[in-house]
Amino acid sequence: MRNDQPLETYKATIAYDGTDFLGYQVQTSGRTVQGSFETALTQILKTPQRIIGAGRTDTGVHATGQVISMKIAWQHSAKDLHRALSANLPDDIVVKELTTIYPSFHPRFDALERQYVYTILNQPLPDVLSRRYVLHVANPLNIENMQRASRFLIGEHNFSSFGKPPQGNNAVRHLRQITWKQNGPEIKITISANAFLYRMVRNIVGTLLNVGLGKIETKDVKYILEAKDRAMAGAPALACGLCLTKVNY
Amino acid sequence: MRNDQPLETYKATIAYDGTDFLGYQVQTSGRTVQGSFETALTQILKTPQRIIGAGRTDTGVHATGQVISMKIAWQHSAKDLHRALSANLPDDIVVKELTTIYPSFHPRFDALERQYVYTILNQPLPDVLSRRYVLHVANPLNIENMQRASRFLIGEHNFSSFGKPPQGNNAVRHLRQITWKQNGPEIKITISANAFLYRMVRNIVGTLLNVGLGKIETKDVKYILEAKDRAMAGAPALACGLCLTKVNY
Repeated sequence: MRNDQPLETYKATIAYDGTDFLGYQVQTSGRTVQGSFETALTQILKTPQRIIGAGRTDTGVHATGQVISMKIAWQHSAKDLHRALSANLPDDIVVKELTTIYPSFHPRFDALERQYVYTILNQPLPDVLSRRYVLHVANPLNIENMQRASRFLIGEHNFSSFGKPPQGNNAVRHLRQITWKQNGPEIKITISANAFLYRMVRNIVGTLLNVGLGKIETKDVKYILEAKDRAMAGAPALACGLCLTKVNY
Repeated sequence: MRNDQPLETYKATIAYDGTDFLGYQVQTSGRTVQGSFETALTQILKTPQRIIGAGRTDTGVHATGQVISMKIAWQHSAKDLHRALSANLPDDIVVKELTTIYPSFHPRFDALERQYVYTILNQPLPDVLSRRYVLHVANPLNIENMQRASRFLIGEHNFSSFGKPPQGNNAVRHLRQITWKQNGPEIKITISANAFLYRMVRNIVGTLLNVGLGKIETKDVKYILEAKDRAMAGAPALACGLCLTKVNY
């Protein structure tokens, strides 16, 4: 393949089981989603390839709606590329959708909203078949109090208590929605915002768990938010319960 | 702990993720459910222990309702034993229930009925977060034909076409019920019988898949059953979709 072939830009929505990855982003060593994807793409195109992702999910965090882009010299259809990727990717990464897109598309900078879902299993015993994808909490949670506490976080706030902004950036984010869905012992918390600080969803859920367990009061979440101090909030909830479900453009 | 301590019999219902086990039964080498459970029990009691299981699930087959028994010298409560096991078992085995039981209880010989569930995901793309627990079938299945074909199997039959009986045993089994549950692209087939032949559920599902894919006709399943010839039926469906869900006594 010659270097002067025209490059086409592709947008892909991908899903992955984060359990066996050291996060999304390429590291100096260790298996990552980006690294595994680039390896597959390099195998297909026979030249080194890079991709750009919408969100740099942490070690152990899953995705069903991560968005990536790639600029490649591919002479066949998007459908053929989808098929080639499916054949070359490991079985814990799946391409759900693949289309061409305008050349200036940037998955991270162009994103208007991200949505994450955090899943908690609240029952005495762990469930062996969902253990990779949920946080098991054995002690009973007061979900109503957690829901009430979460409402303090909705809106545009400085979220310094719940995460660190990228260098030179401010910590103001617009948390658009928190919705709760309970199905027996399973609780799904869906959180969407224009963007998130580093570990913000896990820090929020960790703090709400402290409310649910009665370690802090509902209204404490308001004070923690207003303190703009990371030391005030709870420890991050485990990565395994978190899933990047959607990126809107 | 002295050897002349009285032995008590315990019955446990256990769940496991079969993905990383070479099946239930202890092998000369490799990680098995029985082996891992006996290791945990041996650690707790400081003397070598053995357990007996109701069903010898294959490599990769899961369980949410496997039943085991153990005869041990334990001086504390069943609740304490449950807690000790939870602390010592790997995270892909969970004890769901543990009670004392009469000394002659035998999980396999006393079982009156076993229930297995086979899960199929019928959609073009695999689902990354359930891939360890379902069989992904990309081509569209005619579920109605599969259901109709499955009815030929209900009742007392010689199931030689669908599996091998243990040595010196006959192949007559009473298949009590096959129920179907569809939820979007997910199809759950629940099969219960007094007992099953080796790989019988997977061989039945493999044959029904051939019906669903239009490779054989609905009524062929009747002829396959009547032929009493293993070579007539389909290849076994993959282990990952199968789960031992219940043993009734």
